Amino acid sequence: MRVMVLGGDGFCGWPTSLYLSDRGHEVTIIDNLSRRKIDVELEVESLTPIRPVSERIHVWEEVSGHAIGFVNLDLATEYDRLVAVLEEIRPEAIVHFAEQRAAPYSMRNTHTKRYTVDNNVRATHNLLTALVATGIDASLVHLGTMGVYGYGWSGSAPIPEGYLTVKVPTPDGKNDGLRITDLHQGIVWGTQTDQTGRDERLINRFDYDGDYGTVLNRFLMQAAIGHPLTVHGTGGQTRAFIHIRDTVRCIEIAINNPPVSGDKPRVLNQMTEVHRVLDLAKMVADAMQADIAYLPNPRREAEENDLNVRNDQFLALGLKPTTLSEGLLEEGRQVAARYRDRADPSKIVCRSVWRAGMETAEDLVTELPAQA
Amino acid sequence: MRVMVLGGDGFCGWPTSLYLSDRGHEVTIIDNLSRRKIDVELEVESLTPIRPVSERIHVWEEVSGHAIGFVNLDLATEYDRLVAVLEEIRPEAIVHFAEQRAAPYSMRNTHTKRYTVDNNVRATHNLLTALVATGIDASLVHLGTMGVYGYGWSGSAPIPEGYLTVKVPTPDGKNDGLRITDLHQGIVWGTQTDQTGRDERLINRFDYDGDYGTVLNRFLMQAAIGHPLTVHGTGGQTRAFIHIRDTVRCIEIAINNPPVSGDKPRVLNQMTEVHRVLDLAKMVADAMQADIAYLPNPRREAEENDLNVRNDQFLALGLKPTTLSEGLLEEGRQVAARYRDRADPSKIVCRSVWRAGMETAEDLVTELPAQA
Repeated sequence: MRVMVLGGDGFCGWPTSLYLSDRGHEVTIIDNLSRRKIDVELEVESLTPIRPVSERIHVWEEVSGHAIGFVNLDLATEYDRLVAVLEEIRPEAIVHFAEQRAAPYSMRNTHTKRYTVDNNVRATHNLLTALVATGIDASLVHLGTMGVYGYGWSGSAPIPEGYLTVKVPTPDGKNDGLRITDLHQGIVWGTQTDQTGRDERLINRFDYDGDYGTVLNRFLMQAAIGHPLTVHGTGGQTRAFIHIRDTVRCIEIAINNPPVSGDKPRVLNQMTEVHRVLDLAKMVADAMQADIAYLPNPRREAEENDLNVRNDQFLALGLKPTTLSEGLLEEGRQVAARYRDRADPSKIVCRSVWRAGMETAEDLVTELPAQA
Repeated sequence: MRVMVLGGDGFCGWPTSLYLSDRGHEVTIIDNLSRRKIDVELEVESLTPIRPVSERIHVWEEVSGHAIGFVNLDLATEYDRLVAVLEEIRPEAIVHFAEQRAAPYSMRNTHTKRYTVDNNVRATHNLLTALVATGIDASLVHLGTMGVYGYGWSGSAPIPEGYLTVKVPTPDGKNDGLRITDLHQGIVWGTQTDQTGRDERLINRFDYDGDYGTVLNRFLMQAAIGHPLTVHGTGGQTRAFIHIRDTVRCIEIAINNPPVSGDKPRVLNQMTEVHRVLDLAKMVADAMQADIAYLPNPRREAEENDLNVRNDQFLALGLKPTTLSEGLLEEGRQVAARYRDRADPSKIVCRSVWRAGMETAEDLVTELPAQA
């Protein structure tokens, strides 16, 4: 299948591109390298040493024999080029990872607030408009987050999946019969997949900074470098999780099983398990002899919540979940230990707050302890 | 109260600005004149001869003794100027009419689709961001449409009002405690208010073209110029309506009764009665001896629907509704008759379709009949 992966250079997009390529799909990555540029802006780097995108793609062709295309294109501002690229590639499926995904970054300042809304809304709307204008009948898989429901969904009725009637006030995919799958994804953990592990130059990014680092990977990295595990608030937040290996499988399942009609967008919950943040911290602390530090919570959110969410649809479509119990924590520990010298402890604590005047913590460690 | 009216030169914004000014508020209009420029693009004009904004404002000061400020500013693209204007005026209330409101225009072509989404999302988000950045604690009244619910809301549970939990995935008013009222407005009919009627140079705009003309005013104008009343589909669509005189009263009620806290946006249904389109056509046809023409429906929508919607909150806050039975149809008829020679019959039928290939009608009248 001809597949375009929008945002295919990022944390989820890169392993997805390689997985789909490995499975025989013709992959073209569309990416404006905005994630790498935000690293420049935040003065932080992936803990793992990621290579330039053209080198990555070249190495992948070397080790796999599969070519991947790449177009540097800003979806939000280059509408005419987007139309031209769509007409040239004529994709059968499009996977859209090209939204700015970090909530803390979106709250950082006026610029990042406006950038996030402008980029995400315009990129997605330009894509929908271009599909209608070109008449290209690709199925579209859009990545969202469980967070759009709000947390605190509990009791007997789980967070819904299936064909939902979603009403938007402006020209939308539904009106034009586009076949759209919206994946509401849990927090992604893990780093490597079978494909990114084939050569060190294919390594996936690993974010540990306060804006882009996500909770379980952050704990693993903190334990590996001798930093206390940072729990915000009481740690009573309950969240859905998925391993990066399952993310890439879910994406292929979604493009192999597109909605038949474009009458309603399909929503699938892309997650495999649910945990309380404090329980995760205790598990990692026990396994790796780390301390836990309780920090002020920079987010306006409930201290404790339940979460009732199902992934029946992906299970029915054949997903075999990778769970925390399967020893993959060890992979995270190894990655973090191997690249610990690249870590900057001053970037670990989140400095973006949800509301002016909210408290953040001091740095807990200013210099890394010597290698254990 | 110091009030900024965003979009204060438009069909709802202008009479609202005059009404608030007449009631003793200090009004500043913020408008980029986009509505007038769209008229240029569509090669159509308001049936009523509206005057340039600075002349309107000058005449208003002459007849009322009240000054109204005006700033020509594009909310979507001039963020820094918006911040400066907010800091200078320090409004206590902001009324936001500055979204492109016509669904047919938004479906017209690729440019108008992208313009509508870009303008509406960016204007509103820039405003929210600027309020947070400046710390100005104005209450914000945002105009939306009943259409966002979708039509077909029927049975025993009416369309909700009150404090709703609305979840958006990005920095929002709720997080920052902004006091927001979202008015879900019915279709506005009528032209003049007590204020716009005081001098012909204050006259409100009257849209009759296929993109911006709305159903009841269109019928009145069609009957007045001897054009058949154009019903799309079966006319079984049931819609909520409000007279422009009630719109302006509702706005003042909303700014005089802001939400006390910013925990949740408040939603009020701004409408006074519900009618089936065909019933309106028959009423106007009977009263004014006009014919009815059934045209293909350019919208993808249900042919028939019920609508159960309440306006208890505005009634409780003191609104005395102006209803169709009160002879105000006569005012519409008079306006249309007086300016009939300004009408261009080729602009009456809607040419924007919801989906490529959908049918529109031929012009029904190519030349106006002689004055009756």
